Amino acid sequence: MGILKKTPESVYLIAGKPSDKAFVKNFLINKKDNELIFAVDSGLEALDSINIVPDIILGDFDSVGKGILKKYIDKKDIRIIRHNPIKDASDTELAVDECIKARIRKIYMLNCLGGRMDHTFANIYLAYKCIKNDVDVYIFDEFNKIYFRKSSFELNRSNLYGKYIAFFSTYRPVSNFYITGFKYPLRTQVLDSWLNPSLTISNELIEPSGYVSFEDGAVMVIESRDKKPDWSNNK
Amino acid sequence: MGILKKTPESVYLIAGKPSDKAFVKNFLINKKDNELIFAVDSGLEALDSINIVPDIILGDFDSVGKGILKKYIDKKDIRIIRHNPIKDASDTELAVDECIKARIRKIYMLNCLGGRMDHTFANIYLAYKCIKNDVDVYIFDEFNKIYFRKSSFELNRSNLYGKYIAFFSTYRPVSNFYITGFKYPLRTQVLDSWLNPSLTISNELIEPSGYVSFEDGAVMVIESRDKKPDWSNNK
Repeated sequence: MGILKKTPESVYLIAGKPSDKAFVKNFLINKKDNELIFAVDSGLEALDSINIVPDIILGDFDSVGKGILKKYIDKKDIRIIRHNPIKDASDTELAVDECIKARIRKIYMLNCLGGRMDHTFANIYLAYKCIKNDVDVYIFDEFNKIYFRKSSFELNRSNLYGKYIAFFSTYRPVSNFYITGFKYPLRTQVLDSWLNPSLTISNELIEPSGYVSFEDGAVMVIESRDKKPDWSNNK
Repeated sequence: MGILKKTPESVYLIAGKPSDKAFVKNFLINKKDNELIFAVDSGLEALDSINIVPDIILGDFDSVGKGILKKYIDKKDIRIIRHNPIKDASDTELAVDECIKARIRKIYMLNCLGGRMDHTFANIYLAYKCIKNDVDVYIFDEFNKIYFRKSSFELNRSNLYGKYIAFFSTYRPVSNFYITGFKYPLRTQVLDSWLNPSLTISNELIEPSGYVSFEDGAVMVIESRDKKPDWSNNK
């Protein structure tokens, strides 16, 4: 990421077509100067359709209209990383690898969920790869905020993305898991989503703050809401 | 499931609101007389909106309009299972438990993917719970067909749901995994989606049939397509 003199604070990774253009546009309004927008393959089309110019573009561009790519390919301030379509990892994984190499500290992944579920799952596993490499990562769409935690943590109700919160085990069951401050408290137990699929979904934080405790492993956290906010003012 | 004299061959579980009503309607056209439609909570609303009457309704009905429930509650040939909203499992899990108890052999899960990701993940884990209990289960939406396999299996190109096929590890890494007949062949290796998030996505079966081999564990299979077929003739 040799464009900026300093390593950018964080990167917005736009990984595909959006389910909601207004959401993406509204989300990117908050971008600071020291943050980069990274378009992955058809994510370029998504950005183009809302008139947002990325800083980096990566892909084999097998699914991007040639006209759109042409608009950006000669611009000096845009870095283009082109890959062979025959490869062992998705464009999104290659983009994440670039971020890890460049020592980016935080990634917001957008347009990563819904539609084709193979992409959705790969993106979730990919977010975990970031965490393993000490890159803080958050997947957002209009209904969900998804992230991972490798050790016990606190949650504040005022910061939640929606009414609901859910916890899932990851690469192995999570031992000595318990939560306090929630509508459905859980006493110490093994968190194993393969064994208890829906035990920890649709929970709600009822105290001003809640505590999620566990001993080892990693927990996937999904903060969610049933309805999207009204972004009509920002369209 | 005491309504039918014989155990139904399979059950269509409608677990929420549809992303595509035409898809659900079209899917249910193929239902045979010896198969049941099982509406879970807001799945009832989904069915009502396409004028399909379920055989069983289960839920706490916290998210169903009272008017809609009233239409069905006094019908003699519809079984209603009402649950307390405060419970340790989702309505969908309780519905699956009913199916397992009734020794149903096959479940088609619809309206299970997309939107709130906590529900999506819980539904996927839930499908695996079915497999453990020897119930064959398939999750369908307009883009994806998702299922699990506990041992090596063959795939025929003519039966695939879409162009793409992907394989993921489940509750633990899958050892001695290899595939033949595909565009991107994989030699024997450990399949661990937490380690190699996108290694096995967007693959394509190029031979008339392909073989997926592994030694132990369980594999999640996602057959997918980028575009939905045109159901306009069936709307």
